[in-house]
Amino acid sequence: MASYLITGTSRGLGLTLATILAARPEDQVRFIVAAARTKTPALEALINKYPSRIAFVELEVTSQESIDAAVVKVKQVLGPSSNGGIDILINNAGIMPFNPSGIFEATDLMHVLNVNVNGVQLVSAAFLPLLRLGSQKLIFNISSVLGSIELFPRFAVFPVSTYKVSKAALNALTVQWSLDLSKSDFTVVAASPGWLRTDLGTDQADLSVEEGANGILEILKGITKADTGKFFDIHVPGWDKTTSFNHYEGGVLPW
Amino acid sequence: MASYLITGTSRGLGLTLATILAARPEDQVRFIVAAARTKTPALEALINKYPSRIAFVELEVTSQESIDAAVVKVKQVLGPSSNGGIDILINNAGIMPFNPSGIFEATDLMHVLNVNVNGVQLVSAAFLPLLRLGSQKLIFNISSVLGSIELFPRFAVFPVSTYKVSKAALNALTVQWSLDLSKSDFTVVAASPGWLRTDLGTDQADLSVEEGANGILEILKGITKADTGKFFDIHVPGWDKTTSFNHYEGGVLPW
Ligand SMILES: NC(=O)c1ccc[n+]([C@@H]2O[C@H](COP(=O)([O-])OP(=O)(O)OC[C@H]3O[C@@H](n4cnc5c(N)ncnc54)[C@H](OP(=O)(O)O)[C@@H]3O)[C@@H](O)[C@H]2O)c1
Ligand SMILES: NC(=O)c1ccc[n+]([C@@H]2O[C@H](COP(=O)([O-])OP(=O)(O)OC[C@H]3O[C@@H](n4cnc5c(N)ncnc54)[C@H](OP(=O)(O)O)[C@@H]3O)[C@@H](O)[C@H]2O)c1
Repeated sequence: MASYLITGTSRGLGLTLATILAARPEDQVRFIVAAARTKTPALEALINKYPSRIAFVELEVTSQESIDAAVVKVKQVLGPSSNGGIDILINNAGIMPFNPSGIFEATDLMHVLNVNVNGVQLVSAAFLPLLRLGSQKLIFNISSVLGSIELFPRFAVFPVSTYKVSKAALNALTVQWSLDLSKSDFTVVAASPGWLRTDLGTDQADLSVEEGANGILEILKGITKADTGKFFDIHVPGWDKTTSFNHYEGGVLPW
Repeated sequence: MASYLITGTSRGLGLTLATILAARPEDQVRFIVAAARTKTPALEALINKYPSRIAFVELEVTSQESIDAAVVKVKQVLGPSSNGGIDILINNAGIMPFNPSGIFEATDLMHVLNVNVNGVQLVSAAFLPLLRLGSQKLIFNISSVLGSIELFPRFAVFPVSTYKVSKAALNALTVQWSLDLSKSDFTVVAASPGWLRTDLGTDQADLSVEEGANGILEILKGITKADTGKFFDIHVPGWDKTTSFNHYEGGVLPW
């Protein structure tokens, strides 16, 4: 009976999460707010299929103005007294530009931090009052194994240095939120969805976007309040870790 | 015989590092560039004491224009063919605003990331050509134990959430630099100077700024190329860790 707000649902993982959740029965999923910068044809088709279960809300995560307008819109959509608020916020929107010449030539650090870290900060802060009305009080941040500082050497060949720094910062932000909201019965976690065949992950990736989305929803299902502040990896049963940079063993990833 | 460039030398740790280094013999310290936004009376007095050993260079670490002008000035100061370049860059400038109401009410995240993370990125990138001319090729980033994500729970009572996120991001940036420069014979490390009685650390802090500066210079002295990418803590012999949040045991800190 949970209500969800998911950012970055125009395509990729966000769209697939919304698609899977929309097909679940009403006693599991009450309502989905699909937030995105644009209502893409794919998102529009999904909403047309489940018009009473999903609402599109325009959201650019780096714009306070856009975020404030989205909060107003979400309240309207939820109805009188915001009708139980938002139970679960999935901060999924993100970017991964390439830095092929190394971190010392990167010029996009602040831009990547703005979208991947500050976007989560601004969206979470603005929706906090609606999350407080919810019964689950779960903030679920889509991070990446590439944000594990301990694992940086393993992934050194992937030329996305500023992205890696941003996901490490997002993990840090996640723990700060978990600590500062620990007295308010909130659960705040980060999770890595695996390397997925999306625009961001490219077609070289390990897994389909459905595998990643299902892995994320498995983690989400198992989370208890005791898990607040943790950084989870998805679990892919039978995955042969000798053939990949990734292990997908489930459990928590190192910082 | 090393040449140093230190940022944030107007006061606090940066000024004290410059003061200690300036008093060392010529066969240890060849030259110090004391970079700061303003030449404070204390910095001016230091330069007047050792006019041939220290040069002031104006530097606002968040301004590309200021950084570019500083590179030009440093080249002039170093003399013909930049005379051996810069051996050791100490990225020390930093800010720590308070977030007393918790991370969810913080509005300074991007500002703190800009100074504490992007400042290091921009300064290191701009001075990289001069560092390549140096014989030590050492980039030493002043981080903080407060940036250890694993230790966030221990330090939860310190209401500086955005600072903590920024220092975790700085640690991540440090490792990215170390990896991307590993083929160029560079050493890039981060270190925590301890909780020091400076404007930033307040007079509640554990240690004098001299203790912190000496601890940092001890770490610096012991570093080898094999240490690149590490995050060091200072060592304070005899420190009673049962009476403090801090342990000061030396060695490396967890991410
Ligand atoms: N794919 C992978 O292998 C992988 C691995 C680990 C982690 N992740 C994480 O998973 C999340 C989703 O990635 P993905 O693979 O689905 O990427 P994607 O296919 O490129 O989709 C990214 C989504 O984020 C949205 N977005 C980007 N910037 C935004 C902004 N400023 N405001 C609002 N929305 C914005 C995009 O909207 P537009 O359509 O408007 O651009 C799009 O909906 C990201 O956080 C990513 O870091 C992905
Ligand atoms: N003190 C502690 O307990 C402690 C503990 C752990 C880590 N640290 C780290 O140690 C470093 C030095 O801290 P501190 O205690 O010496 O602090 P401080 O006394 O407040 O001095 C900070 C220095 O950074 C400079 N600075 C700030 N913003 C700058 C900018 N945008 N551009 C150029 N310079 C800038 C300041 O210049 P202005 O005078 O122009 O403002 C000043 O020289 C920081 O990175 C801090 O995070 C300190």
